[in-house]
Amino acid sequence: MDSAQENGFSPNKRSKLTTDLDEFDSLFPELVNNLLQSGLKDPEISAACEWFKEVLQYNVPHGKKNRGMFVVMAYKFLVPKPTEENIQLARVLGWCIEMLQAFFLVADDIMDQSLTRRGKPCWFRKENVGLVAVNDAVYLESCIYQLLKCYIRDQPYYVNILELFHEITHCTITGQCLDMTVSPPSGTVDFQQYTMEKYDAIVKWKTAFYSFCLPVTVAMFMAGIDDQEMHQKAKAILLKMGHYFQVQDDYLDCYGDPEVTGKIGTDIQDNKCSWLVITAIQRASSEQLAVLKENYGQSDKTKVKRVKELFDDLDLAQAFDDFEETSFSEIQTLIETSSGGLPQEMFQALVQKIYKRNK
Amino acid sequence: MDSAQENGFSPNKRSKLTTDLDEFDSLFPELVNNLLQSGLKDPEISAACEWFKEVLQYNVPHGKKNRGMFVVMAYKFLVPKPTEENIQLARVLGWCIEMLQAFFLVADDIMDQSLTRRGKPCWFRKENVGLVAVNDAVYLESCIYQLLKCYIRDQPYYVNILELFHEITHCTITGQCLDMTVSPPSGTVDFQQYTMEKYDAIVKWKTAFYSFCLPVTVAMFMAGIDDQEMHQKAKAILLKMGHYFQVQDDYLDCYGDPEVTGKIGTDIQDNKCSWLVITAIQRASSEQLAVLKENYGQSDKTKVKRVKELFDDLDLAQAFDDFEETSFSEIQTLIETSSGGLPQEMFQALVQKIYKRNK
Repeated sequence: MDSAQENGFSPNKRSKLTTDLDEFDSLFPELVNNLLQSGLKDPEISAACEWFKEVLQYNVPHGKKNRGMFVVMAYKFLVPKPTEENIQLARVLGWCIEMLQAFFLVADDIMDQSLTRRGKPCWFRKENVGLVAVNDAVYLESCIYQLLKCYIRDQPYYVNILELFHEITHCTITGQCLDMTVSPPSGTVDFQQYTMEKYDAIVKWKTAFYSFCLPVTVAMFMAGIDDQEMHQKAKAILLKMGHYFQVQDDYLDCYGDPEVTGKIGTDIQDNKCSWLVITAIQRASSEQLAVLKENYGQSDKTKVKRVKELFDDLDLAQAFDDFEETSFSEIQTLIETSSGGLPQEMFQALVQKIYKRNK
Repeated sequence: MDSAQENGFSPNKRSKLTTDLDEFDSLFPELVNNLLQSGLKDPEISAACEWFKEVLQYNVPHGKKNRGMFVVMAYKFLVPKPTEENIQLARVLGWCIEMLQAFFLVADDIMDQSLTRRGKPCWFRKENVGLVAVNDAVYLESCIYQLLKCYIRDQPYYVNILELFHEITHCTITGQCLDMTVSPPSGTVDFQQYTMEKYDAIVKWKTAFYSFCLPVTVAMFMAGIDDQEMHQKAKAILLKMGHYFQVQDDYLDCYGDPEVTGKIGTDIQDNKCSWLVITAIQRASSEQLAVLKENYGQSDKTKVKRVKELFDDLDLAQAFDDFEETSFSEIQTLIETSSGGLPQEMFQALVQKIYKRNK
């Protein structure tokens, strides 16, 4: 596996982006230090701060960091000659998004009773952690506001950014609730609930807002772009990208190469309301539907295999390829017709990062 | 039980305070409406909003509401002729503190695997809830910022209040972590860890900041008081009150009348690091310490009874009375000597609300 793939970026962008990512990574220790330095010296709370140091190290810096890097990338498109100081602020804001993501993931893993995350045991599964992880999740969230206060308090966009993080957090929590309503963690699954309409709503609220709208909107506020119409136009494009991204994710869970993705998909076993199962339901004959119902959502290997065979019979890989082409071309059209004065190259660069990704 | 006691206030303040509380209570439905109205009409997210409506109704309005009412009370002392509009804003901010409290309680109950809260099953214990309650807890937190944006966005103190809620949330999370470090939910308890020093730190960070500093600081910002020295002085008095309040809480858990407090204490069974057990450890002979170790932290009724007998032998009720008198008089002195230009009557009124409380 080459390092560009490891980072989730296309190989052709390799050398430059590896450097950008290195610079992004190198900021993290400073942020941890900033968050904990004074507390570690205070005997009253030093034990808590030691704990939180591990919470941060374990849960924040080991993802693909696409969301965090998107802020830096978008900012550079919006401000052609940015100062190093402002790029550094963009990185700080990028890390704030990575912390938001870590907060959601730690909490989601508890709710889903997941086993692994990013190739390691989920945080709450670690010895001596358990349900204390609930507090650790909200700790990660609270770090965002500590960092924002420390680094961007004097910037004119401070309040916009605060409100934006609040708003996007609220949206994501709403999406998580929608997801739980459709697939209750411990309940029996009702295929009637698995409609493309509900899927689209869950993806929009649970994933697209924080993964795509948030990084670009942060960069726009940093660049002094407050115009509501421009924000609305960007949002429409970014939500569509977020949707495309999540469908890819669902596809890779089943059809991705674990050597490349770094994870073994379990959506079939976990009864997930994924794009694949919904498309299967749409295409299945009543006989095939019965097979799907009989075998979906169970850990038995033979049953998982049976579901995958059914997916093949229904030609879902082809359905995904069709979706990918259509979606990509719709995003292109949207960028060309409705980017509302924002640099089209910025959106192009974003979509290029995810187009035909295999990780 | 008379209604004044039900509300946790001294009987002599009954009629006026019942009215204040009624007015406070009557605002809650408007806030719920405000939070959910548009979402309930949006087919994409209405299912989530229906769920959140129940989360709010079940978890927010059924406490004593002391913290929320403290904002209104403090504000009236700080601004002698307040407008009805500003009193209404003080109530909104009071409800934001009640939501913060609800967020902490829902999360703490999951972590402690508690059974009941405010005389009802804990939220996560309800059918169809379970670990989804983690998301519901953070939903309650996110409502604070929705309400602040809606109601006080145009006020000069908006950013101060945002930062204050962030800061106090961060402190409380730190306190919760300290508590978990000293008494791990599933671990064996180490009496060596139960020192008065650690107890004081946990109380300060986990309870005093959000229960006492937060309401008064909110009122001070509303009243336009930004002076750092005044805030420092208020903080010293309020942290001391918070400490006194928590010791009372620990005392009432064992010695309170369940008919009055509305709850049956379980600190002994739950192995809590309470003021009583620490005082017992300080006073016990090595023989008595052995008895305590043998019987503390277990659900067996005979063992609980044995611990209570030991508490009686060690005269802990008297120790508490002594503490209460000393603490009250120290608070009085602090108010008289160090209220830094803030109305002493405000602090007096607060302390009168909790002095010798039986609930």
